[in-house]
Amino acid sequence: MRAIVKGKGMPNGTRIRPVPVPKIGPDDVLVKVDKAGICGTDLHIYQWDAWSQARIKVPLVYGHEFAGTVEKVGGNAKGIQKGDFVSAEGHFVCWRCNACRTGNAHVCENLKVLGVDLDGIFAEYVKIPATNIIHNDKRIPLNVAAVQDPLGNAVHTAFSGHPTGHTIAVLGCGPIGLMALAVARAAGARAVVAVEKNEYRQALARKMGATHVFGEPAEALADVKAMTGGAGADDVYEMSGHPKLLDLALRLAKPAGGIHILGIYHDQQVAVNINEVVFRGLNIHGIHGRRVFDTWTRMQGMLVSGRLDISPVFTHEYPFEKFDEAMQTMASGNCGKITLHW
Amino acid sequence: MRAIVKGKGMPNGTRIRPVPVPKIGPDDVLVKVDKAGICGTDLHIYQWDAWSQARIKVPLVYGHEFAGTVEKVGGNAKGIQKGDFVSAEGHFVCWRCNACRTGNAHVCENLKVLGVDLDGIFAEYVKIPATNIIHNDKRIPLNVAAVQDPLGNAVHTAFSGHPTGHTIAVLGCGPIGLMALAVARAAGARAVVAVEKNEYRQALARKMGATHVFGEPAEALADVKAMTGGAGADDVYEMSGHPKLLDLALRLAKPAGGIHILGIYHDQQVAVNINEVVFRGLNIHGIHGRRVFDTWTRMQGMLVSGRLDISPVFTHEYPFEKFDEAMQTMASGNCGKITLHW
Amino acid sequence: MRAIVKGKGMPNGTRIRPVPVPKIGPDDVLVKVDKAGICGTDLHIYQWDAWSQARIKVPLVYGHEFAGTVEKVGGNAKGIQKGDFVSAEGHFVCWRCNACRTGNAHVCENLKVLGVDLDGIFAEYVKIPATNIIHNDKRIPLNVAAVQDPLGNAVHTAFSGHPTGHTIAVLGCGPIGLMALAVARAAGARAVVAVEKNEYRQALARKMGATHVFGEPAEALADVKAMTGGAGADDVYEMSGHPKLLDLALRLAKPAGGIHILGIYHDQQVAVNINEVVFRGLNIHGIHGRRVFDTWTRMQGMLVSGRLDISPVFTHEYPFEKFDEAMQTMASGNCGKITLHW
Amino acid sequence: MRAIVKGKGMPNGTRIRPVPVPKIGPDDVLVKVDKAGICGTDLHIYQWDAWSQARIKVPLVYGHEFAGTVEKVGGNAKGIQKGDFVSAEGHFVCWRCNACRTGNAHVCENLKVLGVDLDGIFAEYVKIPATNIIHNDKRIPLNVAAVQDPLGNAVHTAFSGHPTGHTIAVLGCGPIGLMALAVARAAGARAVVAVEKNEYRQALARKMGATHVFGEPAEALADVKAMTGGAGADDVYEMSGHPKLLDLALRLAKPAGGIHILGIYHDQQVAVNINEVVFRGLNIHGIHGRRVFDTWTRMQGMLVSGRLDISPVFTHEYPFEKFDEAMQTMASGNCGKITLHW
Repeated sequence: MRAIVKGKGMPNGTRIRPVPVPKIGPDDVLVKVDKAGICGTDLHIYQWDAWSQARIKVPLVYGHEFAGTVEKVGGNAKGIQKGDFVSAEGHFVCWRCNACRTGNAHVCENLKVLGVDLDGIFAEYVKIPATNIIHNDKRIPLNVAAVQDPLGNAVHTAFSGHPTGHTIAVLGCGPIGLMALAVARAAGARAVVAVEKNEYRQALARKMGATHVFGEPAEALADVKAMTGGAGADDVYEMSGHPKLLDLALRLAKPAGGIHILGIYHDQQVAVNINEVVFRGLNIHGIHGRRVFDTWTRMQGMLVSGRLDISPVFTHEYPFEKFDEAMQTMASGNCGKITLHW
Repeated sequence: MRAIVKGKGMPNGTRIRPVPVPKIGPDDVLVKVDKAGICGTDLHIYQWDAWSQARIKVPLVYGHEFAGTVEKVGGNAKGIQKGDFVSAEGHFVCWRCNACRTGNAHVCENLKVLGVDLDGIFAEYVKIPATNIIHNDKRIPLNVAAVQDPLGNAVHTAFSGHPTGHTIAVLGCGPIGLMALAVARAAGARAVVAVEKNEYRQALARKMGATHVFGEPAEALADVKAMTGGAGADDVYEMSGHPKLLDLALRLAKPAGGIHILGIYHDQQVAVNINEVVFRGLNIHGIHGRRVFDTWTRMQGMLVSGRLDISPVFTHEYPFEKFDEAMQTMASGNCGKITLHW
Repeated sequence: MRAIVKGKGMPNGTRIRPVPVPKIGPDDVLVKVDKAGICGTDLHIYQWDAWSQARIKVPLVYGHEFAGTVEKVGGNAKGIQKGDFVSAEGHFVCWRCNACRTGNAHVCENLKVLGVDLDGIFAEYVKIPATNIIHNDKRIPLNVAAVQDPLGNAVHTAFSGHPTGHTIAVLGCGPIGLMALAVARAAGARAVVAVEKNEYRQALARKMGATHVFGEPAEALADVKAMTGGAGADDVYEMSGHPKLLDLALRLAKPAGGIHILGIYHDQQVAVNINEVVFRGLNIHGIHGRRVFDTWTRMQGMLVSGRLDISPVFTHEYPFEKFDEAMQTMASGNCGKITLHW
Repeated sequence: MRAIVKGKGMPNGTRIRPVPVPKIGPDDVLVKVDKAGICGTDLHIYQWDAWSQARIKVPLVYGHEFAGTVEKVGGNAKGIQKGDFVSAEGHFVCWRCNACRTGNAHVCENLKVLGVDLDGIFAEYVKIPATNIIHNDKRIPLNVAAVQDPLGNAVHTAFSGHPTGHTIAVLGCGPIGLMALAVARAAGARAVVAVEKNEYRQALARKMGATHVFGEPAEALADVKAMTGGAGADDVYEMSGHPKLLDLALRLAKPAGGIHILGIYHDQQVAVNINEVVFRGLNIHGIHGRRVFDTWTRMQGMLVSGRLDISPVFTHEYPFEKFDEAMQTMASGNCGKITLHW
């Protein structure tokens, strides 16, 4: 089959190469990839940055956002049949560590990631453990089904707090930030405030349901205070990885409010006004992956409800043959979510 | 001023009578009543049933659902000014009992109810303790503002569970049941299933956002099971006070699901399949009043969001002069929420 | 190997019979049974009552409470070794239904129970899926380790509420009720009130940490009201299955309090004062099994802490040869927990 | 009456001076101070540091930890009588801001602090709003009742997490850290690990119930990992205000664990490894004051249970005449809680 492979001796490039179709065991499922999404992680691997060089063992088929059709089912895999419309939770967890056994499998101590630690979905077929298969409701469009991994990040972030009837601020409007705006809005947030410098993404933020969009932190702060009678935002989603926006998050949040951080920071140490956290009784939650599998259940419910519409986030689609072009569009920042197909 | 007074020697009637404008103390506020709603409790008092005869001391100005304009402010009442657009939490609590001191003031042990234990809002003016005054956002229409007491019951019920992305069943579509449908829908519920025999109210249920409407419990059960892959509803709101629908609630709920009961039952003892509760790990929550004041904050947020539209619930409006006619319409059951004005 | 087998044509008896040692698959573990506990369920099977006749397919090795030593490990079972000191979660769940996928595996829709739906632990060896194996901390005594299944019921019940610093009432002092007293006490409950008619069990209740013991519901109610300034118990554990004590539970609970029901009722329909639940904002939680596996983690933590001492609950121990005698002691009610060994 | 007054022109000293007994209004209570505790805040005021110079308006009677006897009751104050044994919540909140109206009065936006913003309890009598009066159970010793303000900080911290059966780490063993050790232990924590350099306080930590005491962060980290099978502490209480210990807190916490910060930091900006928070799904909670009044209810329940014994924390007691000596002992760090009496 064809696959996008990060290979030896190819630090700056990626090539479509023929590889064998994966062999499945009794607990596995083979899925034909019908649509794929590109994640920031994929761009890091493509660019072969320091993180990638330390983490990735080549050759690797990468990619982890997808929807597809079940092709073959292992003997122990119950409730799954050839032809089923599926996606997959791309975090493969151990089910035996303390985190897995206490309802926190999303931070499993022995986590393996699809397309990072083992071959992923930038290919015609992918092997998935049956436990990780998610059946998609047929009412969910293919491209939406394909990006439930990042949409699930957004859903996990939003329901780490309580959006309904509340004032929500979203800092940084990359694809997950954009999706989080739509999730908060679909859940009946009172107001959804986006903070984002890039004008292209500001326009997308409005389409995704932001009720207020700001380029400048100081303006956002003044406006949120004004619209909440001085209290501040009930929940802030820090999606940017910028220390300045983390600082803004602490100022935006109401007393006893929540700050939910999904952004990754360039530096290991970030200056934080901890006394503000203490005196104002703030609550900071790190967000990683998706709740296994509660996030998926709620996400599909929201998609089926008709209230969650993420269609404006899809700005570009390419065939896998134009993978390099797709990556360059992604690197430019002037895009929402980019999808791929064979 | 004019007021609707339940007086001595008038078991079956109510009369508009002149009474003095209430005198306020330093911690009180005098409010002009601009719009009132009629509650089932008011019908009980009007009909002078057994409950009313035991509880009510006449003469009484009754009524507790309203919105109005601040007329006069006591010396200690801060942050409230003549002309403010307000409603009120009609449950006056003691702030000193165990319930009040542990975040459960909605079940205060020393509760006094506006229009039941002391003079209410079926009058030109009403006296309200400053603590109970709620400022209404100016974007909320007057008739909506006037019915936040029952809408708050619906919001309290819905957020006793987790509607977003979930399958919700609402049993009984009186005004609060109808409002609860709209609240669940506005919060992004996956599906909102109404069970109601009265065809007039079935039609209202559809307008309020029910995705499925059933007259027969058995049909509702079969359909909910089918639409949830056999699991059942995530949350059931029992709004009817009918033992048969309470029994349905237990069958409709998914394992570990929630049953939130606001309905009042005619008999003190109702037959319940408790083993079903135990073996299926169900959670039953009695709902009384509104969370003081968290429900109000969230409710106003939902109203301001534009996602919560309860306008179809308003089916009749009368001047206070036609109070008897309003009560007869209410007794017929062929109505949503009925409002009154001078 | 030897095993206690419920066989064909033996409605009123149970016999030790030779059966083959179970064969394990790659995902299984074979465990030598070092100590077993007898559960009420086992007595039902022994007595071959209506429930047993409907549910049990003979021949069956029954029993599910135990601790033992790992004898043999399947090829896929990681982190488990011959000689390990283990017990097992006896509820085998599917991990694929809605309940399993949303953190509620304790009410799995496809549950299989050890010693009920498949051969259990009244035998020299038992086959357990690796996922269900629980490693016991070496500081936990063997007999305590053997009864973590019912102790886990008690822990699940207690942490369905909030015992620390609160007033707890436990209705019915069979072995699980007795254990629940000790759990609440070890968690720092303000007072732990036991209600139990049987004087033998009243004495055990005192040894297990009850601060107050009552035989009469009315006395318990008066005393709890007095000791809480009129409010009532923060949490009530209904362990008896008696409708009168369920009624007491509703009266004992404070406004917004919790009633956690583990008792099983003889009749499918039990009369309940639902209006009391509604007007007082009560919360009723059905308790089934143990949280998979959060309950085990917390339970072992409490045992290791030294604060949870359940030693008084062990009143009788028999060799398996005296199984009939053990069952008769159990049927008498004058016992705490009964254990068995080969 | 006599009082400890911070006066004009006395930057470095404090003097006992005669001042008038406070006059109470209808919503107030006058209390005779029977025992007082000294808080770190009092030391700051005594030393007249930068914070004090910016915040405090002299002359001021300071102090806020106390227990006493009701002397006089205002006309509106219900349920309080001359001779009652009481303490007080020293944070006077507005009950009208968003925080107060949504269950978070502990971070009221209009907070006034007893002994900081208005005259406090280093005096023979103090005026307290009736709402803030807490009745003490008679079984609570006078010196324990006098320090419920800081003990409440410890209780608030502990129940921001879930101590029972869990592994808890307490960083910094000043009086509140010491009390938090005892609270976690009384709630049935599996292990309670103290990290503290000062040997005097290490000895106190052992007496208060620490199961492990470390002076070096690296040793604490290694040991906690070892005792939890590599997972880490379920909850960490950061009581020190040292950036190095905050860094340790992030390493000590298990995946999805809680870090509860009560310590105040010298610098506004503290370097934090935020990526660790994100990737490990950590939860950071700022702790301020006490939950109003849930913390008090639970705290008194724990004290009455007999499981919470904080007697080792009381290391020094002085008459008010030796106030300067008390402050010098406090400044030395070689003390637990210091109390005062007339």
